Amino acid sequence: MRSEFDFIQNIKNKYNLTFVGDDCAVLPKDDKTDMVLTVDMLVEDVDFRLDWTTPEFLGHKALAVSLSDIAAMGAGPKWAMLSIGVPEKIWKTDFIDRFYAGWFALAKQFDVELIGGDVSRSPDKVVIDSISGGDVPKGKAILRSTAKPGERIFVTGTLGAAACGLKLLESGERYNESLAASMQDPILRQLQPQSKIGVANSLQSLNIATSMIDISDGLASDLKHICKASGVGARLFAEKIPADPNLAMMSSDQILDFAINGGEDFELLFTTNEKNISSLKTPDFSCIGEITASIGIIELILDGNSEILIPKGFRHF
Amino acid sequence: MRSEFDFIQNIKNKYNLTFVGDDCAVLPKDDKTDMVLTVDMLVEDVDFRLDWTTPEFLGHKALAVSLSDIAAMGAGPKWAMLSIGVPEKIWKTDFIDRFYAGWFALAKQFDVELIGGDVSRSPDKVVIDSISGGDVPKGKAILRSTAKPGERIFVTGTLGAAACGLKLLESGERYNESLAASMQDPILRQLQPQSKIGVANSLQSLNIATSMIDISDGLASDLKHICKASGVGARLFAEKIPADPNLAMMSSDQILDFAINGGEDFELLFTTNEKNISSLKTPDFSCIGEITASIGIIELILDGNSEILIPKGFRHF
Repeated sequence: MRSEFDFIQNIKNKYNLTFVGDDCAVLPKDDKTDMVLTVDMLVEDVDFRLDWTTPEFLGHKALAVSLSDIAAMGAGPKWAMLSIGVPEKIWKTDFIDRFYAGWFALAKQFDVELIGGDVSRSPDKVVIDSISGGDVPKGKAILRSTAKPGERIFVTGTLGAAACGLKLLESGERYNESLAASMQDPILRQLQPQSKIGVANSLQSLNIATSMIDISDGLASDLKHICKASGVGARLFAEKIPADPNLAMMSSDQILDFAINGGEDFELLFTTNEKNISSLKTPDFSCIGEITASIGIIELILDGNSEILIPKGFRHF
Repeated sequence: MRSEFDFIQNIKNKYNLTFVGDDCAVLPKDDKTDMVLTVDMLVEDVDFRLDWTTPEFLGHKALAVSLSDIAAMGAGPKWAMLSIGVPEKIWKTDFIDRFYAGWFALAKQFDVELIGGDVSRSPDKVVIDSISGGDVPKGKAILRSTAKPGERIFVTGTLGAAACGLKLLESGERYNESLAASMQDPILRQLQPQSKIGVANSLQSLNIATSMIDISDGLASDLKHICKASGVGARLFAEKIPADPNLAMMSSDQILDFAINGGEDFELLFTTNEKNISSLKTPDFSCIGEITASIGIIELILDGNSEILIPKGFRHF
């Protein structure tokens, strides 16, 4: 069965779509500004389960996933639209008010204005489509397609927590305030992800990121997207990958698997010239590898040995 | 149970949303141009049935409904994004390729570029979210909120055909090329609606429409939206309402009901000063009534009698 990535590549070629293929589309706005636009669909029982989350968390996450795409372009969010399809039995509850409360709490934080949307009935599942737009200085959107061999690969924050949270939810744990922090933190990373707008803003000001993507599918999958778009390869150093401290009770193999293949951390993955490394010496950033000329190949250096990494990140099909 | 219109009005007030409430949001773009944006969600078994339509018709309609919102602002479409959630059993067929073929055939007609989207798995129903953007000369977007008492009400084309098509589909008829035109035409109006981009463009050039909306919920419902937004009322003359000729075999009561309450004709409903009536003397336009000062009241003049019209158009909740 073809993957959604193959399908998208296919229609991109077939219909000559020049704006498709990054976290956001970049359109000219005025003399000084480009506009970035993104859309993300979230479907009940595929992307979330109502008995795992709260309406407020879900509202937050619906916006957060789109803000993360805006951040991944080095852009700042400005406005959003929201479509939601809701079964009648849920419409009759306080679900939708609480959903919007969660959405607006995050929107307020980043001064994002809701400018439109659609409210529809759906037969049996909640479905959400989250659209965001933002601004970036003209020509300064940070693309996936502009990494070059020799550049260093950086990642923000820590990895694997959201996937760990998902595993906890799958095993029957639920969010509540009396949970131990080692469970509460990962579950919150899964249900209420924080998008890296602030860090993206810093990177835009520093003007040093040569390519960027947000980690939504998983480090390996998303690095592969950069490699494919840029026509390059990558070498990752396992011991440099910042696994989330909450994974500490797992085996070292599991920790590495979660950090490399776990989705939805919404950290930023970017490349930069070696000379800029000193600008990034803060705990926010980890240098985890380098871009190579081996087109499409991601090499993992682990205990002095090299292996070819096959991404196992999330895909719908 | 609260309607979706009440819900939207409620969050508009609660969160002070100044851009929400028209067919499109209008955002400043550059010195000469405003940008319009719209989104429409289409859900299987609520907005369409797969056994009533073809993937190509559905792709066409997904874009057409959004283009109609762009037209309703007197704007021209420029770009679109498309989210689609598809169950695995449908993903494995040629559905999605045919859907995009229908979408792109219409996009090509109006030079609309697909700039982004999302492809997701859904548990059991197809769900589509259609986003479009366009341009309009600065300050020239034609709003719902600017009709004034004494102005004349115009509508483009003919009304009731799409609702008639829906009724034929409900009664078991299906589109095929050997159907009599009196059935084929209404079914096509339902499954493959034409958006009035050309007419909207003419109205923008003429600079005479004082308010406008597209007829998606039904003439009475959509006129009510104009009345509510503008703080006015309206008087409609039944014999002036251009019922579609394909309704001819119905009773006169039914014809009027279909023309007044039938949704999805995607014609344009607009108001203009009396002095402009002469500019609109073409078969494309019908003068069907006038704006009054009776806030929120729509009066129907039928056989010399006046009655208050209660809109029965489509609503999700």
